Amino acid sequence: MDVKKPASQENLNGDESESQISHLALDIGGSLIKVVYFLRSNGSGGSVDDSGKKSDPVLEGRLHFAKFETSKINDCLEFIRSKNLHLAGGGAYKFADLIKEKLGVVLDKEDEMDCLVTGANFLLKAVHQEAFTYVDGQKEFVQIDQNDLYPYLLVNIGSGVSMIKVDGDGKFERISGTSVGGGTFWGLGRLLTNCKSFDELLELSHQGNNRVIDMLVGDIYGGSEYSKIGLTSTNIASSFGKAISDNKELKDYKPEDVARSLLRMISNNIGQISYLNALRFGLKRIFFAGFFIRGHAYTMDTISVAVSFWSKGDAKAMFLRHEGFLGALGAFVSYENHGLGGLKTHQSVQQFAVSKTYAGKKICCLVNEDLNDNESIDFGVAFAA
Amino acid sequence: MDVKKPASQENLNGDESESQISHLALDIGGSLIKVVYFLRSNGSGGSVDDSGKKSDPVLEGRLHFAKFETSKINDCLEFIRSKNLHLAGGGAYKFADLIKEKLGVVLDKEDEMDCLVTGANFLLKAVHQEAFTYVDGQKEFVQIDQNDLYPYLLVNIGSGVSMIKVDGDGKFERISGTSVGGGTFWGLGRLLTNCKSFDELLELSHQGNNRVIDMLVGDIYGGSEYSKIGLTSTNIASSFGKAISDNKELKDYKPEDVARSLLRMISNNIGQISYLNALRFGLKRIFFAGFFIRGHAYTMDTISVAVSFWSKGDAKAMFLRHEGFLGALGAFVSYENHGLGGLKTHQSVQQFAVSKTYAGKKICCLVNEDLNDNESIDFGVAFAA
Repeated sequence: MDVKKPASQENLNGDESESQISHLALDIGGSLIKVVYFLRSNGSGGSVDDSGKKSDPVLEGRLHFAKFETSKINDCLEFIRSKNLHLAGGGAYKFADLIKEKLGVVLDKEDEMDCLVTGANFLLKAVHQEAFTYVDGQKEFVQIDQNDLYPYLLVNIGSGVSMIKVDGDGKFERISGTSVGGGTFWGLGRLLTNCKSFDELLELSHQGNNRVIDMLVGDIYGGSEYSKIGLTSTNIASSFGKAISDNKELKDYKPEDVARSLLRMISNNIGQISYLNALRFGLKRIFFAGFFIRGHAYTMDTISVAVSFWSKGDAKAMFLRHEGFLGALGAFVSYENHGLGGLKTHQSVQQFAVSKTYAGKKICCLVNEDLNDNESIDFGVAFAA
Repeated sequence: MDVKKPASQENLNGDESESQISHLALDIGGSLIKVVYFLRSNGSGGSVDDSGKKSDPVLEGRLHFAKFETSKINDCLEFIRSKNLHLAGGGAYKFADLIKEKLGVVLDKEDEMDCLVTGANFLLKAVHQEAFTYVDGQKEFVQIDQNDLYPYLLVNIGSGVSMIKVDGDGKFERISGTSVGGGTFWGLGRLLTNCKSFDELLELSHQGNNRVIDMLVGDIYGGSEYSKIGLTSTNIASSFGKAISDNKELKDYKPEDVARSLLRMISNNIGQISYLNALRFGLKRIFFAGFFIRGHAYTMDTISVAVSFWSKGDAKAMFLRHEGFLGALGAFVSYENHGLGGLKTHQSVQQFAVSKTYAGKKICCLVNEDLNDNESIDFGVAFAA
């Protein structure tokens, strides 16, 4: 859910040349606030433009990404104010009053699904090495043929999960979803392990062994597989099923084993439901995004294995490097009235790795290979002002 | 997984006329052992046969049902020994040595899916008022047209969940399943609430309110619905999602609210995956069985609502009164060498409510209306010896 500020608020914070920050979009979800903002480079001598040419009115700079917990929205608003950011996108309806009070802007509502799809299409078309598969611990980038991109299934795993069939720019339908998502992992995980953050829980799961708590096929069949129906002895028959008979309490289990079982249960479930929906509509490509994944190896591996298992190898899960910022990016890109004017490439941007036309506008991107490890600075953009 | 005893063990316990018990089948699952056994009625004057006719060699009696926790298998074996039961079916491979030691019988393996399907077909064809829908708290029995029964989807919810496409007697395929089943409810529920039994947890969930812990659509959208994509404000956006921001620990939540959220999450998830699989194969009927359900109103309501929600009203969930005993019944019915000889109806069984031919054998059933509240005595059967 993204909202716009009215034009009258555009120049609230005054001196753009001093702050070098011009525009911002927010995507406020159930768990996280995702922020995309544009920083202008330092005039002609900036990192983006070394040519020194000034013939066109150009806003040159870089898109930055940041995230905050939704419960800490005040930190986020303080961040925006401290950076002297112009608010060109906005926040969820729920926080409209707070944002008006703190930042002095009035918000309009944008459609969340619209923004997700716009963000995904932007990334898949404009950013080099955005989508990748994850098989046996190996990340492999996928070449996207822009003429053969649609239709695809977009699975956005936030607090809950949305599954969207995308047929083109602005052409999409939310066909399914599940309430068992990132909020379930973090909510249940918090109750079960007393972890203090999502990332701590994720890190914990990395060290755990799900077989301690999950009931495996072999646990039921005395170590045997059940090959007639395609189940091996190490397949999970029942998530958390071993806890029924162990005569153990929660404190008797290692938190890392609990975290691992939980992550596997949820990732596998999302992979399965996603595949069944892709099958239903004959969609060959499934892209998984949302801040649940966080480039976490075990999560991506579980989702990949689930899609491969249920499709009997026919389908492959794909992931996006900017997975968490689809909504915010979509709000940023689609915001027609943000004062940037038409976007077009200035000749100075030849140094950018990729230059693509997106939604009739030319946008150039710089690729940062360690993207998921950073909270900001991912690619640069040049706008014609 | 069901196993047979060899013919040589058939008369191990000797005096049938005294014990009046003749044959038994076991289905040993990850959580529960299900027992079906046949008690002969007391000669011509028994409750089953009031006619006194003795012209045919007939075994008259009644099928009984019982269940034990798998972890308490010794109680189950003691029960069998105390009742002086002939073991005509058996237990899981895993327990073969134990059963041999305690009861002196050697076990062969039967196929679990075979037994489930045989049991389901038997119930749907031979038992009056077996299948029912559950809508708005109302149970409504479904008339099964035996000429239009196949294909159907059988969803057996035990510790894990199996989804089986049934095309006829002995004709079936396990098309899907999920590890998020009864073992997950009980395993996770035990860790979260310290309940001492599955039924205690189920009873607890009855009193709870899932909205305390689940993140609803309205929680994200400031009380609003998101009607554009078909979500109302009370739809669950993220199961357990409210726990991420409440700054509460497990002890701060009421166990009944936790149990309710858990039951709803799992039931809804099973309903959704079942519907997607039914859709995939064009199956109009979905029957839910397995000991997870236990005739529990909220469970059946959640599954029914899930199937209705995801199918936009096109599909209806159906339940089975003997839901937990499909495998054990299937083992019992399909056991060719159990010494009962060909089953045929004696003329004395006219008093039975229903008389159906099943698998070439005539079997008669008495209906007990309060079936799910009893651990045994459900319907009577007359066999020609």
